[in-house]
Amino acid sequence: MKLLRFEADGQPVIGVVSGDGIVRMADLLPEFVEMRQLAAAGPEALARLADKLATAQPTVALEGVKLLAPIERPGHFMALGMNYKKHAEEGVRLGVMPPRFQVWFNKATNCVSPPHADIDPGVTKQLDYEVELGFVIGKAARYVSPEEAPGHIFGYFVANDVSARDWQLHANTWTIGKSFETFGPIGPWIVTPDEIGDPHKLELRCYVNGELRQKSNTSDMIYSIWEQIEYLSTAFELEPGDLYLTGTPEGVGHAMIPQMHLKPGDVVRCEIENIGAIENQVIESRAKRFPDLEESRIQKLLSSEPV
Amino acid sequence: MKLLRFEADGQPVIGVVSGDGIVRMADLLPEFVEMRQLAAAGPEALARLADKLATAQPTVALEGVKLLAPIERPGHFMALGMNYKKHAEEGVRLGVMPPRFQVWFNKATNCVSPPHADIDPGVTKQLDYEVELGFVIGKAARYVSPEEAPGHIFGYFVANDVSARDWQLHANTWTIGKSFETFGPIGPWIVTPDEIGDPHKLELRCYVNGELRQKSNTSDMIYSIWEQIEYLSTAFELEPGDLYLTGTPEGVGHAMIPQMHLKPGDVVRCEIENIGAIENQVIESRAKRFPDLEESRIQKLLSSEPV
Repeated sequence: MKLLRFEADGQPVIGVVSGDGIVRMADLLPEFVEMRQLAAAGPEALARLADKLATAQPTVALEGVKLLAPIERPGHFMALGMNYKKHAEEGVRLGVMPPRFQVWFNKATNCVSPPHADIDPGVTKQLDYEVELGFVIGKAARYVSPEEAPGHIFGYFVANDVSARDWQLHANTWTIGKSFETFGPIGPWIVTPDEIGDPHKLELRCYVNGELRQKSNTSDMIYSIWEQIEYLSTAFELEPGDLYLTGTPEGVGHAMIPQMHLKPGDVVRCEIENIGAIENQVIESRAKRFPDLEESRIQKLLSSEPV
Repeated sequence: MKLLRFEADGQPVIGVVSGDGIVRMADLLPEFVEMRQLAAAGPEALARLADKLATAQPTVALEGVKLLAPIERPGHFMALGMNYKKHAEEGVRLGVMPPRFQVWFNKATNCVSPPHADIDPGVTKQLDYEVELGFVIGKAARYVSPEEAPGHIFGYFVANDVSARDWQLHANTWTIGKSFETFGPIGPWIVTPDEIGDPHKLELRCYVNGELRQKSNTSDMIYSIWEQIEYLSTAFELEPGDLYLTGTPEGVGHAMIPQMHLKPGDVVRCEIENIGAIENQVIESRAKRFPDLEESRIQKLLSSEPV
């Protein structure tokens, strides 16, 4: 099933894709009004939903509908850096050390954005794209082995891990440059695992103004999704509706020679086999202030010499 | 005012300290049932609250009450690394590069923990403490100058930025080793700015089993709270109830010679002038699995030599 959120009469509504239409959740399992409730309800609820869907008639045309982010304010919105072999090589060329473990970082939960929303560059001068396969947690996960991990997936989606490279590299923690408003378009919907099969055999592509920039397959991942869930759930509980992005392959603009950053008017399309595509246009910056941030303040203050 | 959350008949309740007692919010401004609502309501609501409090009688004794985290699931829970001059020097000794900008990292929002809750080491073998001054956002902040920043503070609190040093240093992003469950005790309450005066003149101390380990003053901060709000709000919106920790001073166990990590039974007390203290005991690990994580997987996979 393809589970989605859309706007109807100015209100967010959840539903399920059926052919070229949408069946509203209210006509299927009306007890679910938010996607996270459904994620928490487990596979039994999804089975009931599929039963209902089999005999339901869509009441909304898919075409022209305003899609929203399928989940808007997750508890966690995290992404894995350097998880494609060839992209990790790109990183080494740019001076990023090859990591010893999984490199998770956070995107602010309020940067989640609809699948066709505009991207506002804000104060960055180095705007970049990253197509990524995302997964949503269903049943809460804590101390989960790789073998048990598939049972904790609610579904998969396409994400663009939009990045302000200058701000990302202010600090090795990366989080600020990954968290600008509008930097987390996801969607177009959540696809349940039964329609995906092995998530490590999906082609993914990213186009800028129709030009192919990233093309890879999730089989190039270094850490599988099952290993990711093992690692994360060893540290803390992954909760229903949490969003995790599994890394981007090679071909980001910041690693091109010469570097090619996004500019206003550019259209970025991210697509993944068996899921679909999201498409986002870069707009003129709406930034109201460009503070003159001092770069070397800490070094100047340190009495020791920089190492 | 000191704003707090506590448990009454098994339910979380918010209230205000009055002498050695608590006045329930329901007896003051009953429209506020969650602390984040009050944070969002702005200074006018706080002024009304202070008026009501002046003539109210406490109905709950402070002693013996079970305090909860004053805010439990913030939108953001972030902390600033290397923000005290002498602690930054400690970092340099340990091979951490002096940063070029503010080094923000995330703690998982579900690691927020009550002011007297136990600390579960989970899978870490290098458990450590960090006393920090935290601030809560009141009015939403976006593109805020340092001069405007004080108007966006709802209040201040004491935090222990509990850290799993081994897991923290798995990756330069730090977030996983900062996010274990129970690693974010905060409190004991939120103190409104009028009782704090200049937040950059507060003594802060951390004791382990009564032994003084950290003693500094917020005047040793590299970036002021106003500069922190400027920087963050340039990237994204700081929302009412967001929690930010402003960095720890020197004296963490991991930087001692020899290193002194926390062990089960240890009691950590963090206190800050004009706010109060939180105290947390380390318990035996409740970890159910210790997966055998491969350290060098990515290097082995990379065809380029590690730089």
